[in-house]
Amino acid sequence: MKLYNYFRSSASFRVRIALALKGLAYEYVPVHLVKGEQLTADYAGLAPARLVPLLVDGEQRLSQSLAIIEYLDEVQPEPPLLPRDAAGRARVRSLALDIACEIHPLNNLRVLKYLKDQLGVSEEAKNAWYRHWVESGLEVVEARLRDEAGTGRYCHGDRPTLADCVLVPQIFNAQRFDCRLDHLPTVMRVFEQCMQHPAFVAAQPSRCPDAQG
Amino acid sequence: MKLYNYFRSSASFRVRIALALKGLAYEYVPVHLVKGEQLTADYAGLAPARLVPLLVDGEQRLSQSLAIIEYLDEVQPEPPLLPRDAAGRARVRSLALDIACEIHPLNNLRVLKYLKDQLGVSEEAKNAWYRHWVESGLEVVEARLRDEAGTGRYCHGDRPTLADCVLVPQIFNAQRFDCRLDHLPTVMRVFEQCMQHPAFVAAQPSRCPDAQG
Repeated sequence: MKLYNYFRSSASFRVRIALALKGLAYEYVPVHLVKGEQLTADYAGLAPARLVPLLVDGEQRLSQSLAIIEYLDEVQPEPPLLPRDAAGRARVRSLALDIACEIHPLNNLRVLKYLKDQLGVSEEAKNAWYRHWVESGLEVVEARLRDEAGTGRYCHGDRPTLADCVLVPQIFNAQRFDCRLDHLPTVMRVFEQCMQHPAFVAAQPSRCPDAQG
Repeated sequence: MKLYNYFRSSASFRVRIALALKGLAYEYVPVHLVKGEQLTADYAGLAPARLVPLLVDGEQRLSQSLAIIEYLDEVQPEPPLLPRDAAGRARVRSLALDIACEIHPLNNLRVLKYLKDQLGVSEEAKNAWYRHWVESGLEVVEARLRDEAGTGRYCHGDRPTLADCVLVPQIFNAQRFDCRLDHLPTVMRVFEQCMQHPAFVAAQPSRCPDAQG
């Protein structure tokens, strides 16, 4: 397998965690988003959305991090990244989507660029925007992890799931942009649990080949 | 089952389509987003994210439209909303996420409200923002539906899938906001195919009880 990837992209990071949890080896192909390498005709030919990550598995080109992780979980079921019961699976998926749909899309590079270039938003207002969606979005995750019976050492039970693969990269981003996190004790407890796990450690941005550039 | 829902919410519309495709009956509970009914303490007690849709099935409270549809597909497998093969499932999910993560989150009510109230963006610039994400996002979907072998009469093959449940509400929104669609012939062909299907017709906003208010 070949993973087209950018070390700071949190969607890429999600997939790296899943690959590490599954123990799957892959070739790492860096795509430098800030330099615009995703916009080249070569890359657009592979990935019409011009986004990372893209996973190439034999003949298959797979895009969208959550779809890639579900695929990995189907082709390599152990260890499972979703629980066995439908209600538990729905819970894990909805936690992942609380981040992947409600926080992350508002804060990716092209959106921040639109705010600045098209709407003339100041650096300060842009950072306030970033923090607003992270903080309000993570408050929802905190309320759920705190109140719902499914929470264990990890987001769901005592083993990492898809939800943890999505949560951890979002916390890395939040820390990088100085978002408030001290009001999120359950989220941070789960995050710290994850960062004890070798798969999460191995997948982190600073360990990526392109982080050294 | 009880569906908390708003007729114009495209995430609600996705779930209504899936319920109709499965032939599942449900109680329709309107939550008027523009009046702010999702912000009441009663509703927040049910749905910490204060978003619709929310599906209540016995003891389960299910949030996030894509997670709800996957749940429905697991508890009521016929007719299936995902193909059987892992690569096909990944394709359908990624098409759904191309809309649910790359277009819709940028254009929902609370984001448009932030642009207006916090950033002082003009009505005209707000509408340009809306159209930008719809049009550029749907161009990606067009390229995929046009070029990928999996496309059939519907987004994937000749039966409706999760991808169609997500595409159709996005086109309704695009039409409501006068987005350009004439450069998306494959998308519009699939949309028109869907709108020949009684489940999509029955689920549309104008048929909802709260559309009459």
